[in-house]
Amino acid sequence: MDDLIRFLRIPSISADPAYTREVRQAAEFVRAWLDRAGLENAQLIDSPEAGAHPIVYADWIHAPGRPTLLLYGHYDVQPPDPLEEWISPPFEPQIRDGNIYARGAADDKGQLFILMESVAQSLRDNNGHLPVNVKFLIEGEEESSGRHIDRFVTENGSALAADAAIICDTAMFAPEIPSLTVSLRGIVYGEIIVHGAAHDLHSGDYGGVAPNAVEAAARIVSSLKSCDGKILIPGFYDRVLAPSPAEIQEWRRLPFNAEEFRDREVGSSALTGEPGFDPLTRIWARPTFEVHGIRGGYAGEGAKTVIPAAASAKISLRLVPDQRPGEVAEQVASAIASACPPGVTARFILNHAAPPSLVDRRNPYLAKAAEAMESVFGHPTAYIGCGGSIPIVNLLLQKLRVSTVLPGFGLPDDQIHAPNEKLCISNYIRGISSMVRYYDALGGANPVSSAK
Amino acid sequence: MDDLIRFLRIPSISADPAYTREVRQAAEFVRAWLDRAGLENAQLIDSPEAGAHPIVYADWIHAPGRPTLLLYGHYDVQPPDPLEEWISPPFEPQIRDGNIYARGAADDKGQLFILMESVAQSLRDNNGHLPVNVKFLIEGEEESSGRHIDRFVTENGSALAADAAIICDTAMFAPEIPSLTVSLRGIVYGEIIVHGAAHDLHSGDYGGVAPNAVEAAARIVSSLKSCDGKILIPGFYDRVLAPSPAEIQEWRRLPFNAEEFRDREVGSSALTGEPGFDPLTRIWARPTFEVHGIRGGYAGEGAKTVIPAAASAKISLRLVPDQRPGEVAEQVASAIASACPPGVTARFILNHAAPPSLVDRRNPYLAKAAEAMESVFGHPTAYIGCGGSIPIVNLLLQKLRVSTVLPGFGLPDDQIHAPNEKLCISNYIRGISSMVRYYDALGGANPVSSAK
Repeated sequence: MDDLIRFLRIPSISADPAYTREVRQAAEFVRAWLDRAGLENAQLIDSPEAGAHPIVYADWIHAPGRPTLLLYGHYDVQPPDPLEEWISPPFEPQIRDGNIYARGAADDKGQLFILMESVAQSLRDNNGHLPVNVKFLIEGEEESSGRHIDRFVTENGSALAADAAIICDTAMFAPEIPSLTVSLRGIVYGEIIVHGAAHDLHSGDYGGVAPNAVEAAARIVSSLKSCDGKILIPGFYDRVLAPSPAEIQEWRRLPFNAEEFRDREVGSSALTGEPGFDPLTRIWARPTFEVHGIRGGYAGEGAKTVIPAAASAKISLRLVPDQRPGEVAEQVASAIASACPPGVTARFILNHAAPPSLVDRRNPYLAKAAEAMESVFGHPTAYIGCGGSIPIVNLLLQKLRVSTVLPGFGLPDDQIHAPNEKLCISNYIRGISSMVRYYDALGGANPVSSAK
Repeated sequence: MDDLIRFLRIPSISADPAYTREVRQAAEFVRAWLDRAGLENAQLIDSPEAGAHPIVYADWIHAPGRPTLLLYGHYDVQPPDPLEEWISPPFEPQIRDGNIYARGAADDKGQLFILMESVAQSLRDNNGHLPVNVKFLIEGEEESSGRHIDRFVTENGSALAADAAIICDTAMFAPEIPSLTVSLRGIVYGEIIVHGAAHDLHSGDYGGVAPNAVEAAARIVSSLKSCDGKILIPGFYDRVLAPSPAEIQEWRRLPFNAEEFRDREVGSSALTGEPGFDPLTRIWARPTFEVHGIRGGYAGEGAKTVIPAAASAKISLRLVPDQRPGEVAEQVASAIASACPPGVTARFILNHAAPPSLVDRRNPYLAKAAEAMESVFGHPTAYIGCGGSIPIVNLLLQKLRVSTVLPGFGLPDDQIHAPNEKLCISNYIRGISSMVRYYDALGGANPVSSAK
């Protein structure tokens, strides 16, 4: 735990250029740790692009005939705002009630450490050997939509060859229920930029005749989705697949109470969203439109009677199979143009995009993971969806033909991307044990044979 | 001009508590200047309220039987944001092309200096005497909705007794056209505060079920006004008076070109607003709803996939006769409550309010001002409306029974409340001459007799 705490202290906020040095410091921390643990070829891989953050690579490939696992994680974290809502500061990890609180505790430093610790423990258990081959691929741009990993994976296909990829960056469905994520939503993330008058104007002198950029941004944002959650972008739902009856059955068997979810996790007076779909379906199998932030005009102390000339809003759309990010980005841009009121201009700037993904249920690496987790947690492993996006899953499938297994050890209330992010320490420990057993199962007495 | 430049250098931003010292410094500057100019009883008047800014008072009342003028202005200024759009820094006055550029150049330090300089010049011209009695009442909370002036005027009615009040804080209709403002809009200014989930949530994990406070704020803001400028708040238009046919005739005679106005002053592709009303009517005789600023979620560098739990928007409504601020504030609060989507709470916090006002055309002080200005500018004085709000006008009428004359020497493109605020130096000089002639006319050979 001491090493994890030291790791969590590093404010490796990849989206903010002010933290470039700290992001690199986190990368070097991981590299040195893996090197000390007995991994080989531990190195930082820099990108030629300005502002890019390094990839950490390390491997141990001395188990011929045994499977090779590509272990992926990310050492960067989300910005911690709003700071004032943290009970303990985001980069001063604190243990309270069996949890460790810090930015990155669950997403993803803590869960990355489950992979790192499990390999180190397996090396110790087996006197410097592992039952499987492993290649660590750890990036620092997961939270900032950097392109370094895309290029590196694309250009180094043979060096990264593996039988399966493992990512610990998701959550368990509920405490005590080990979970494997088998579907992920995609994403289109961008910004709406609105310009009205040539400059800010006085609302007394021009109120009634001058376009208001903030009003226009508000109008555009609210025109893209109905009050009850239906997205009003033409063509947006055309490729959306309905979940299979078998999936819906699986989800109905999960212990889920909408009122409890609303009160304990969301903490609002009502759940929102499309009528006719239950909450899990809305999160796992329906696309979304969200506005993440908006700015424009004067929002500081006191009053300022200005008609703002400019405004912007950060938005995203979560996609489900078979929606295509490129197509959706075009649909959004054109819906924004159509919704733009007179007197202002509005354009959509794409920030990043990733397709949705489904894990192949027939993948033998999936079943072995489920067994290993069940043996540690003492409860059957649930196959669940995830409303979030992990773009690397598609990248590995498309470029390396490698399927990913997603054992998650976070909890739904870990508050990732929000103040007071945490990780349950007993899940951290059981996660490490599960992974050690998984490596044993894959490479031990009755091994899954490597295709490579 | 040197003194005005020194005055403009003081960042007396009354809305921002960080500038409390500078606001006081500006007050002291005015007091000392008036004292040196030969005014008597020059003093700062503090309020017992925390955070209040002082009033500057000074008088010269040695012309018995002559009219007494209450000369009002304000020494505080608007915040200068966005700083990066200023050609020269807001508090480093610069002269370019016959204009002086600085925050407060027109609103109101430069125009206040017209009153101060004209009285000083009249004192010099008359060997230490004035043709009229004057009482300066200069506040430092005009841009921050402070209440000090309200209480002071209310409690000191007899000390402030006057035949007319003079305020230079408006603009000429166009260059070369001396103008007296005879109608002002009122205002209701406040903030919409929206709360959704208990804290920010990850848009992957909760997108589709959690309320989004920024989306709700956008929806509320856009629900209060139609795309073509009609305000959708129930009851809002009930008390709105139509301008008289005579007024409409006067306005039609003014040199106004809507295309030129759009291109040169507003700088947008289209003028907005209610169909069926021409632009001057929309600014002078129709009420408005504007959003001045909005904030919520993550609007910084890079991408953050958060569902914001809180958002706020600063809004105002400009009022016309006979709308009542208290009634409108209630209508707004109730329209916001009605427009609030499920899962969020929204409330309206009133910041400040002022009723609309009309100047009595029969007031003899108005005609004398028009004559004095015409004699200096060589063009008939126009009687115009003003879309802005000057709450003191109503206060003086209600508490002191004093009507206000509003000779304005700014220009429509002075960019008050915006970057690159300026004042035309020749208007500044002609303004001083006009006022000197006005004092002479009121108190000279054919005086207006004092009612007091």
